[in-house]
Formats: sequence, structure tokens, C-alpha cells
Amino acid sequence: MNRIIKTISVLMIFSILVGAAYAQFAKPEDAIKYRKAVMTIIAQHFGRLGAMVKGKVPYDQKAFAGNAAVIKTVSVLPWEAFLSPGSDKGQTTMKSGVLKNPADFKALAQQFEMEVGKLSAVAKGGDFDAARAQFGAVAQSCKACHSKTRK
Amino acid sequence: MNRIIKTISVLMIFSILVGAAYAQFAKPEDAIKYRKAVMTIIAQHFGRLGAMVKGKVPYDQKAFAGNAAVIKTVSVLPWEAFLSPGSDKGQTTMKSGVLKNPADFKALAQQFEMEVGKLSAVAKGGDFDAARAQFGAVAQSCKACHSKTRK
Repeated sequence: MNRIIKTISVLMIFSILVGAAYAQFAKPEDAIKYRKAVMTIIAQHFGRLGAMVKGKVPYDQKAFAGNAAVIKTVSVLPWEAFLSPGSDKGQTTMKSGVLKNPADFKALAQQFEMEVGKLSAVAKGGDFDAARAQFGAVAQSCKACHSKTRK
Repeated sequence: MNRIIKTISVLMIFSILVGAAYAQFAKPEDAIKYRKAVMTIIAQHFGRLGAMVKGKVPYDQKAFAGNAAVIKTVSVLPWEAFLSPGSDKGQTTMKSGVLKNPADFKALAQQFEMEVGKLSAVAKGGDFDAARAQFGAVAQSCKACHSKTRK
């Protein structure tokens, strides 16, 4: 009997903790809107880097480093929103698998954060070839996650 | 004649510089989407602060400071997008006056950034009454800008 009470207590505490972590968004739609907003910002700044990498815009070390720094700063923000319960429904392209296997998703997110961190560091150094190579590594981590998590 | 050439040259250089500053967005729609994205993020985190300020959620110093820090970080991002040429048309509530009087808009934006900077500093200190008061000052700076710049 005591073991059952203990188990129930542990489960209750766990669900409260999980609840607290996810209670940030009042509705799944809010989480969807928020993560899309972060992705819009990342895409804009990554696009500016891409324009320089592809030679469409002249390489400007300060601008490159500035855009990479913005991506790094906002790269930590969206993950919680992707794991918000019920946010696989509605105006989203996210697969339900993300909510079923959050550990897999977190690993992909961490990989992206790591590559973005490297990009920001390399960009500050000013070596364009190195920055271009690391831009490619970030792009790969984008694709690795999108191919597994998007409908 | 030399003076005319000089004037034209100065004007051309000026327009190139202004163009460079605004060339970040390929289309006005991109600028509108981007600034809305930043505002979505600010609103989400400001809402989390508001829930604590209004007593709907218990005050948590770490969470309060974390949300204030996110707002401070992204508060510098959207202004360029608001000043993007042609972005007073389409899916936006921005008044055309923003583009006509960019200096007025920049002053309002700087006021917001200043108040947000104070909020982030106060939040780190952990004095809830002070944080609550500064939350009010930030809200005032939001309203001051919105009332002048929104249709």
C-alpha cells in the first residue's frame, strides 16, 4: 500500500514538473505561433548569411558575425514550444512523432544549437572559408531535423 | 557645375547607404512578417511577466529575470523592419507616418529599449516590487508607440 502511495506521489510530482515546464503556452495555437515566429527570425538571418556564402552579396565580416550572433541568441528559444502538448494539430507541419519521442527531438535541437554556436564563434574570427564551411554544417543540422520532424 | 556634381555625388552615396541599411529584406512582406515575428516573441514573454505581476502565476525570480532577458535580447531586432520601404502596405497595421517620420519612430523604439534594459536589470536584482513598477514603465512605452504608429 505504501509503495502504491509512493508511486502515485512520484507520478504526481513528475506531472506537476512537466506541467510547469509546458504551462508557458496557454493554448497549442500560441505555441505554434511562437515557434513559427522564432523560425521566421532564424530563416531571415540565415538567409542573409546564405546570400554572402553564395556570393550574391559581398562578404562583410561584421554583418556576417552579427547575423550569426542573432541566430545563436534565438536558437535556444523555440524547442519548448515544439513540445507543447497538442501542438501537433492545427496550423503546423510538425509530425506527432515529436511529442511521442521528445528525446529524439531534443537531440536534434541540441545538434543545431551546437552547430550555430560554432558558426557564431567562427564568424567572429573573420575567416570566410571557415565561416562558409560552418554555414554548411548548420544547414545540414536544419535539414536533419526538418526531414524527421516535418509532415 | 562642380557643385551640382558634388551634390549629386553626395545624394547618390547617401541613397546607397540608406539602401544598404534597408536592403536586408527582399520584399516589404518579408519585413512585415519579420517584425510581427519579433513582436510575437516579445508579447509571449511579456505576457509571462504580466501573469506574475498580476498574481495569476506565483512570482519566480529566475523565470521573471529569464523572460525579461529574452525581451531585452530581441528588443533591438524589429526596428529596421518597420522602416523598410513600402512596408506600410499589405498585412500590417502600421501607419504610413512611421516611414515619413523615421526619427519619431526611432525615438519611441529607443525609449522602449531603454525601459526594457532597466526591467532586465531590476529583474536580476530580485526585488519584486521594483520589477513590477518597471514592468509598468515598459507597458507604458509599448502603449506610447502603439498609439502613435498603429492604424
